[in-house]
Amino acid sequence: MEQVFKIIGIVHSELGTTQDAPREGSHALQEATLEIYPEYCLGLAGLEQHSRLVVLYWLHRADREVLRVYPGGDRTKEMIGVFTNRSPLRPNPVGISVVDILDVGISSVHVRGMDAINGTPIIDLKATIDRSA
Amino acid sequence: MEQVFKIIGIVHSELGTTQDAPREGSHALQEATLEIYPEYCLGLAGLEQHSRLVVLYWLHRADREVLRVYPGGDRTKEMIGVFTNRSPLRPNPVGISVVDILDVGISSVHVRGMDAINGTPIIDLKATIDRSA
Repeated sequence: MEQVFKIIGIVHSELGTTQDAPREGSHALQEATLEIYPEYCLGLAGLEQHSRLVVLYWLHRADREVLRVYPGGDRTKEMIGVFTNRSPLRPNPVGISVVDILDVGISSVHVRGMDAINGTPIIDLKATIDRSA
Repeated sequence: MEQVFKIIGIVHSELGTTQDAPREGSHALQEATLEIYPEYCLGLAGLEQHSRLVVLYWLHRADREVLRVYPGGDRTKEMIGVFTNRSPLRPNPVGISVVDILDVGISSVHVRGMDAINGTPIIDLKATIDRSA
């Protein structure tokens, strides 16, 4: 069973490779620009009144066939399921970042706290008024 | 541009319709069973060691063509973009719930705090050791 989704935009970031991407918890200061494609820009109306944003994106370089991994890459440990961690390796490699909104344009949002690499496809944005996501 | 999600499982819940689904912030006690399809069950290995889980799911009844809505359905107000709120109406209706894990089976997870209706397709699970998502 499958479901088609639309790519609504793309991440512009100084993070060029997956090696550049910070590990969980260390990306608080990374800035990025979320470019939203013209056909979806109406969806940004009013976003300038918010300060926090949940960004869903597609980790397009991740292996989707992996179901178990070694914790921290340590092969002396027992393998764990991909649903028990935040690794990009999983059947649907959707990343979640909760970011600070720095500036909202007609077709873009400048944010801080985004750990996706340059060129990452964007799936969804959800503004939030608090820190839960 | 399009991509494809694999549906990894389905939500079993007493919430039968979208009218039953609680509004944001009022679903803390709702229990549900996440059935994971056989081909993805290896991904659950080790999940019993976690207490919190981020669930991504597909709001399969949502209108995907809507880009602006009236806040709270109030037509006297100015329309706002769908990316400024948590409404199911959006190009890619992906829902996020952060739930408590009550029990882990071979092919299912019983959880508390899930506001998706019965039959909702599941996209991803990410265990988390704290309350951020």
